Amino acid sequence: MEEILTQLTIDQDRLSQEIDRLAACSATAAPGVTRILYTKEDTVGRELVADYAQQAGLEISVDALGNTFITWKGSQPELPKVATGSHIDAIPHSGKYDGVVGVLGAIEALRALKATGFQPQRTIEIILFTAEEPTRFGIGCLGSRALANTLSVAQLQALKDPEGGLLDPLRQAAGFQGALSEVPLHAGDYHSFVELHIEQGPELEAAGCDIGAVTAIAAPATVRLIIHGSGGHAGACTMPVRKDALIPAAEMALFVQQVALESVSEDAVATTGLFQVHPGAVNSIPSRVTLEIDIRDTELASRDHMVQRVLSEASRLRNHYQIEIESTILNEDPPATCLPALVDLVMEVSKQEAFKAQRMISRAYHDTLFMSQICPTTMIFVPSKNGYSHRPEEYTSPEEIRKGVKVLAATLAKLSYMSSTIN
Amino acid sequence: MEEILTQLTIDQDRLSQEIDRLAACSATAAPGVTRILYTKEDTVGRELVADYAQQAGLEISVDALGNTFITWKGSQPELPKVATGSHIDAIPHSGKYDGVVGVLGAIEALRALKATGFQPQRTIEIILFTAEEPTRFGIGCLGSRALANTLSVAQLQALKDPEGGLLDPLRQAAGFQGALSEVPLHAGDYHSFVELHIEQGPELEAAGCDIGAVTAIAAPATVRLIIHGSGGHAGACTMPVRKDALIPAAEMALFVQQVALESVSEDAVATTGLFQVHPGAVNSIPSRVTLEIDIRDTELASRDHMVQRVLSEASRLRNHYQIEIESTILNEDPPATCLPALVDLVMEVSKQEAFKAQRMISRAYHDTLFMSQICPTTMIFVPSKNGYSHRPEEYTSPEEIRKGVKVLAATLAKLSYMSSTIN
Repeated sequence: MEEILTQLTIDQDRLSQEIDRLAACSATAAPGVTRILYTKEDTVGRELVADYAQQAGLEISVDALGNTFITWKGSQPELPKVATGSHIDAIPHSGKYDGVVGVLGAIEALRALKATGFQPQRTIEIILFTAEEPTRFGIGCLGSRALANTLSVAQLQALKDPEGGLLDPLRQAAGFQGALSEVPLHAGDYHSFVELHIEQGPELEAAGCDIGAVTAIAAPATVRLIIHGSGGHAGACTMPVRKDALIPAAEMALFVQQVALESVSEDAVATTGLFQVHPGAVNSIPSRVTLEIDIRDTELASRDHMVQRVLSEASRLRNHYQIEIESTILNEDPPATCLPALVDLVMEVSKQEAFKAQRMISRAYHDTLFMSQICPTTMIFVPSKNGYSHRPEEYTSPEEIRKGVKVLAATLAKLSYMSSTIN
Repeated sequence: MEEILTQLTIDQDRLSQEIDRLAACSATAAPGVTRILYTKEDTVGRELVADYAQQAGLEISVDALGNTFITWKGSQPELPKVATGSHIDAIPHSGKYDGVVGVLGAIEALRALKATGFQPQRTIEIILFTAEEPTRFGIGCLGSRALANTLSVAQLQALKDPEGGLLDPLRQAAGFQGALSEVPLHAGDYHSFVELHIEQGPELEAAGCDIGAVTAIAAPATVRLIIHGSGGHAGACTMPVRKDALIPAAEMALFVQQVALESVSEDAVATTGLFQVHPGAVNSIPSRVTLEIDIRDTELASRDHMVQRVLSEASRLRNHYQIEIESTILNEDPPATCLPALVDLVMEVSKQEAFKAQRMISRAYHDTLFMSQICPTTMIFVPSKNGYSHRPEEYTSPEEIRKGVKVLAATLAKLSYMSSTIN
């Protein structure tokens, strides 16, 4: 094994070209990338990935949602599989590395292993997850949520996009015909899952590290508040009779920040990312404000406490201003704790390659959050320049990606020969 | 004179039909009305008004901006004229009474006076002002500002609409070919100006009054702030390193309200009507917020003090958060004080008709704000149901409008025989 790994060579030029070709499958002009689930660009992007996989001699199968399984059969295919993978959908005007590095990088990792003559014992599988981004149906990690059986068929069928399009006819029109009831994975089929991903934050770059070995993924929750005030003419309506929806909304935005700052957990973050003021004319009193609040922590109890504080503040504002406030918890997911033995393996492999590595948490969520409900997991992070992500300036150099792919390849190879269940 | 006025009959049914016909000249479906300067609907609406004026035997002339002068020549046309008028442009999805009542109501007033055999001594003129609403060029009272010579030809020629269209070719394409330099009125040509308008606030309805005699028009100012923070992933970017543009923006929105509440003037109002958060995705930290703040008071010193407090707070926030804040004063107009003798005349005429009237200020601005720079002015307000305006629910009953038109007609008739300059 160790001798084989010394021969492992990642072709960073080929991989860079493939990343660029996939980036060209975009609904908007370069340098931004826009690739939305079940659109033409999504289909063309999936075809490109399938071409690369087939050229590498890998097998492909697809489920009813479009989750795609790219398989390198092991010498003992009856053993639980070792899996990796990520997503290729991209929110509007974003970058070309988020998700893509973990899909195309995984194919390159298997090609590199094949080139050394390596033969896996456990089957190695790359999963291209359908729609990690919430763009089309308002729910993140659609594919991995369904694989982890946390979405029922009825819930899937109820999903609508902003134009009112239902998931079922849309996924069928995109060519995915199977039964939704057959999407969930079987826990016993998987030995371990390791996702390669760009960090999307500034920590690795600041620390001068090549590799992050992820120990936990923060638990995300989203709260939507709709504050209904009363509009009117900004000149004619006097201060005492107003119900300006912007006032409680502004108080809430400040409170949301305060909740995270006051948390005992240093991983706590809370953000009012969406804040829409209606009607939005300078001479009209705001009659309605919609807020979407993102709250995360690696500790579930701390995250839940923050969510409760926000809901309590909404109640206080409702009473104080005698104003209608609708509150909805859009999602409230558990955190993931990565398996220490897997984290150690990523650290050890990095050390063997003389790459500088550190343990870290993932504050962003990924498909690994849901794969953690099926089998032991970890993630391999590579640096993001300036921490930029979800914008055209997103950048990780070919050399940085090469190191991540090499660590992934070696990790998958070792896991494929691990004799027993890891724990 | 008094005998003639007892014969004065306002045809409220005809006027209601004319208001409905003008409302049908709309770029959006009923019940909302949308009529933007120099669009097809604006042109068709102006033609309708011109038809009614011609049928009433009135003369029409138009200036280079489309300000339209509808004239009933007096027996002593060399005397300074008595004027009235308002506007017919309508912001998107608004109502059918704002402005329109003061234009079509004025034509009905002159028709009613003609029907009694009345002959004015001073010429009576109805002015249809171009674009009281700021919709197209971002500046309110475009026509009356130019008539009052507060906009130079260069400033007019620099005006652009949101699509980048310049005023000069747009007004020419709409059929207004004259020289912009000839737009300003000559102060000595006007004896007085009285505008009939819906209140756009709830005071007359609450007081059970038919008529409001306007004593002053609040001084409006608009401040635009653009707060430039730094974006990022709402999960991956920790609290201490953020520059979330929403935080100072929310503080500012609360401060703006506080400034009006703390003002010693009870007419002070301050509103953050526009509050746009970029990029506006739940999992993205706000990187930019644009605020447009509307500040008004009947006392100029008090209004200016509020504007200064807002600008000072922007400086404080800039220093406190070490964040870039651009601040621009978009407009800063003086208030108008109406001539007490004209206000008294409106009160007296109302009393003769046994209409319940009260003196009041106008917190909304109107073309009268700028006509006050040319000659003595006042306004006649009629009730707005629930104080609603700038929305489809805007409503003033035919009977309420009839009373306003009758007071206007009698006031114009008396002014036309007033022997000397009023003061």
